[in-house]
Formats: sequence, C-alpha cells, structure tokens
Amino acid sequence: VNELDLIDWLRPRLPMRADVELGAGDDCALVRPDGGPLAVTVDQLLEGVHFRPEDDPAAVGWKTLAVSLSDLAAMGCAPRWAVTALGMRRGAAEDWPRRFAEGLGMCAREYGVALVGGDYTVGDGPISVSLTAIGSPFNGGPARRDGARAGDVLAVTGALGGSIRGRHLRFAPRLAESRSLCAHGGVRAMMDLSDGLAADLPRFCRASGVGARVHAATLPVHPDVPQAGQADPAYLHAMQDGEDFELLVALAPGRIDALMAGWPHPTPLTVIGECAGAADELVLVDPEGNAGDWPGGGYVHGDD
Amino acid sequence: VNELDLIDWLRPRLPMRADVELGAGDDCALVRPDGGPLAVTVDQLLEGVHFRPEDDPAAVGWKTLAVSLSDLAAMGCAPRWAVTALGMRRGAAEDWPRRFAEGLGMCAREYGVALVGGDYTVGDGPISVSLTAIGSPFNGGPARRDGARAGDVLAVTGALGGSIRGRHLRFAPRLAESRSLCAHGGVRAMMDLSDGLAADLPRFCRASGVGARVHAATLPVHPDVPQAGQADPAYLHAMQDGEDFELLVALAPGRIDALMAGWPHPTPLTVIGECAGAADELVLVDPEGNAGDWPGGGYVHGDD
Repeated sequence: VNELDLIDWLRPRLPMRADVELGAGDDCALVRPDGGPLAVTVDQLLEGVHFRPEDDPAAVGWKTLAVSLSDLAAMGCAPRWAVTALGMRRGAAEDWPRRFAEGLGMCAREYGVALVGGDYTVGDGPISVSLTAIGSPFNGGPARRDGARAGDVLAVTGALGGSIRGRHLRFAPRLAESRSLCAHGGVRAMMDLSDGLAADLPRFCRASGVGARVHAATLPVHPDVPQAGQADPAYLHAMQDGEDFELLVALAPGRIDALMAGWPHPTPLTVIGECAGAADELVLVDPEGNAGDWPGGGYVHGDD
Repeated sequence: VNELDLIDWLRPRLPMRADVELGAGDDCALVRPDGGPLAVTVDQLLEGVHFRPEDDPAAVGWKTLAVSLSDLAAMGCAPRWAVTALGMRRGAAEDWPRRFAEGLGMCAREYGVALVGGDYTVGDGPISVSLTAIGSPFNGGPARRDGARAGDVLAVTGALGGSIRGRHLRFAPRLAESRSLCAHGGVRAMMDLSDGLAADLPRFCRASGVGARVHAATLPVHPDVPQAGQADPAYLHAMQDGEDFELLVALAPGRIDALMAGWPHPTPLTVIGECAGAADELVLVDPEGNAGDWPGGGYVHGDD
C-alpha cells in the first residue's frame, strides 16, 4: 500500500458533500463555506499513548475522527470536512492502513463528514495519526468555554469513568446532544471531557472566571468503573479516568426543568453542580455532604 | 513544558488576523471566511524520514508550515489559518518544542498565517509533526492540476535538485510567485514539486489527461546538485532529488513573452517544455537533442 493506492481505495468509501468542490488528490482540497464562522480543531493519537499496538486498527480509525467530532460537539458545531495524516510504523501489519481507513470511513459516514485530504508516510516510529476537522455552528451555537456565570447549572452527558476498558476506542461523539443543547438556547459554556472532570473542570472555570461546586453523589458513574473501595471511591474514577468524551455544559438556571423534561436522547443529561462566584474556587461535596477540596488527577498532555 | 505552557508561550509570538474570532485554547478555534471557496491541505513530517534528530528544531518548525504553504501556493491560494499537532519523543532535548515553535512562528509571521490550534503529546517514538493549513484563492485562482491542455507551456520556478543538502529545511514557499502567475491569467494547471519532477510530472499529466515533452537542456539545475558525471548527469538530479518545493505550471501559450518580460521576482520562471496531445506520453529530450523515455525515480510515499 502507498499513499496514492490508499487515497484511491478510500475515495468511493467516503460520504460526498455538496459543499466539497474538489476532494483529495490535488495539492489542496477546495470546500465551500456558506457564511458565518467555521470551527477548526486538530487532534493526534500516538501508538503507545492513546492506543496499543494490539488494538483493532478500525477502532483506532474511528477514534481518530471521533475525538475531533467531540471537540466540534463541545463547540456547538456540526462537522463538515476533515483531513488526516497517518505516519505508519515500518513492519506494522500490512492491512493496518486499510483497516484504519475502514474505521475512519465508517465514522465519517455515520456523522456525514467529508474526508477531503490526507498524508501518508512510513517511518520507524510508533504509529502516529492526526486529524483536523472543520465545522459550522448549530442553531444557537457556537458554544465557547468562557461564558459560564455564577449560578449557572453544571451538567454532563452520559456517564463517566472506566473508558480505558475499551469504550475510549468506540465512543459516540455527542453531536446530537450538542445540537439539542444549542437549540434549547440556555448554553452559557461547553467543553468535552477528554482528560477527566478533575482536570477539565478547573480549565472550564478558569476560562469563564467562575468557581464551581460539584456534588459527588450526583456524578453519573459508568458501569465500566471497577468495584469501588473506601480509599478509591467510584466517583473519583469518574472524575479522574479521562477519555470520557462527554459534554460538560454550563446552563442558564431558568428552564432547566423544561430541558430535562423534553430531553430526547437515550444518553442522559445529568446535573452535577453549579457555578459559583469566587473565581477558581472549586468545591467537591462528598457523598456524606461534606464540602472538601477539589481532587487532583486527570491527564495533562506532555506532563507524563 | 506541557501543552498548556507551550500554547501560552506561543500565543504572543504569533501574528493576529482580523478573521480569527477565537484562537487556540478552546475546544475549537473560530475563524471567519468571507465567501468563495477555501483550500485545505495537510502534511506531516517524521523524524528519520523528513528530518534528522540532529537538525535544528527551528528549521523543522519552519519546514512544517512551509510545506503546507507550498501546497497553497500550488493551488493559487493565499494562506490564512493553520493548526498543528506535535508528537514529541520522550528524551528529546528539553528545548526542542520551544525551538520548533520558534521556527513555526517565524514562518507564520513571514507569511501572515494565524496559528489557531495545536495538539501536543509526548510518546516513545520519533518526533512526528503534522500541520493543516487553510487559505483562499488569489485573484485568478484557484489553480487545480487537471486543467492543462496540449500546447500549453510548461514552466518551473526556481532551480531543482540537491535540496537534501539543507535547502529542504529552509525553503521559501512560492506564494508571491503564485500570486503573480494567477494574476497573469494564463495558468491552466499548477502543482508544487515535492517528490521530484520525474515523479510529479507524470501525476500532473495524468490529472489533466495530457502528455508532455521536456527539454533536459532547459532544466534549471540548482548549484546544490553535486558535480555531474556521464552516468549521473546533473539534470537527472534536478528531476529526481525531490523536496524542491518549486511550482510546476502549465500556461496558455499566448502572452508567455509578456509574462516573462514582466516577471517581478528574483526567483526565475523557466520554460522547460510543453504539454502534448497523447495522454500520458512523456518524452525527455536529452541535451544532445535525442527524444527518449521518461526517467523513473522520485519519491512515492509509502513505497520506501
């Protein structure tokens, strides 16, 4: 397999979009925006960090696109186009690139993303993949992370923790949920939980200049979280494990009941706390009702 | 250094653009296109393939952006925004990421590109970097590679060959030259020479469904090409060495003299042949005037 083969093989397997003037194969792709801002996000996955050599290449391909779609969802945006770069490891399984492309293509079809460009190189290192996705705001979007105010309600989609057991390779980016939240009109700020609530909520609050109070008893703990011990409670896994790819959203306090009552998705939306006035002050209320310090943990890229 | 440090450090060193609504630091950047198509291109560089461990990280940073700007130039487009992903090798020199960012920032300032997003991860492998650049057509652009017709004049910017001696890390993408060519109005097709004329001209001709006749004696050979031997003539280096990042352009035959006479750039534009009618038939006329087969060579990614 070489770059030209891979592109030729992939092309008929990809969704077409009317807003693509020229797809992969030239020096650049040409796409047609339609007014309004565009959201742009880049992510990379490294073998040995984000996936293992024995992981299914198709799952890696799915994840490669899904992490960027999660960023677009967090921004209140619908995906439109993506480009990807694949740095192969010499000696990897011969069908790795095609299996990877299969998974990537499956995700692209599922969410209507046109893959309009790629770069393929073989090197000596672990496999590295990166992907850039471009999208446009949903009605009511975009949703930045710096608009939360004291008194806003904090909520998350889905359930948290234990993603490393396999879910992190096969997750569904919360695009439909983001669309509903944006349409509701009460989104003050939003982000996706990629490094765990313990690491991500401080970033969220810092961006908005608010504090927060989170109630451990309300945290939706994923069934993948292992049996809890007293020194290692399940809610800490839910906060620290990372790679949840769920939405964290600050909602204007009015009309929350209407949003919850009319929530149309199988993935739940759960209130976990509220924004507070004192900038940067984060409080975790434990299941016994005692307010305590915010736990450390979560993942900061480059610190490991 | 971690991801947040690097972004914070880089931000004040980057050019601002009025069409950036929200730069790096949120889940996505928000940019404002202004009607018309956008060109999108992605490239990656792998340590051990495109650069060596001992190469200056600032030069690698420059090259990372410059290769994508070369693609935009080849498309007849001005660059606007870029995002990049850096996969660091654990144990690399501590100042590598900042030196890299310095070189990247220098190239961004030189060509007015806003870096609006990044991803930074530390892994075990050779360093991998990828970059996606987005731009808008120059007046008279965009220039695809599939518009050449029989009788069109083939020309290249600059001089070819010997880039591996160091030029490949410090080259100037031919944006100003592309702008002039597009403004001239006679561009039928254009691409950049990244893998060598020997490999790239066949792709160019295939895209347009034409043949070509190239005159070896007219090829602009770069002074970096080593002393020629009879079995290893300089013009073959010029065709096969790769990483020239010069423009190959097919021009409508009328008004070529006017274009040449009015060419305002220190980088020359040289006529090297013409497009022919028989699709895919490529002829190289040697310095003695004998028409012969097209030489092989040049670089196909993934074939090595």
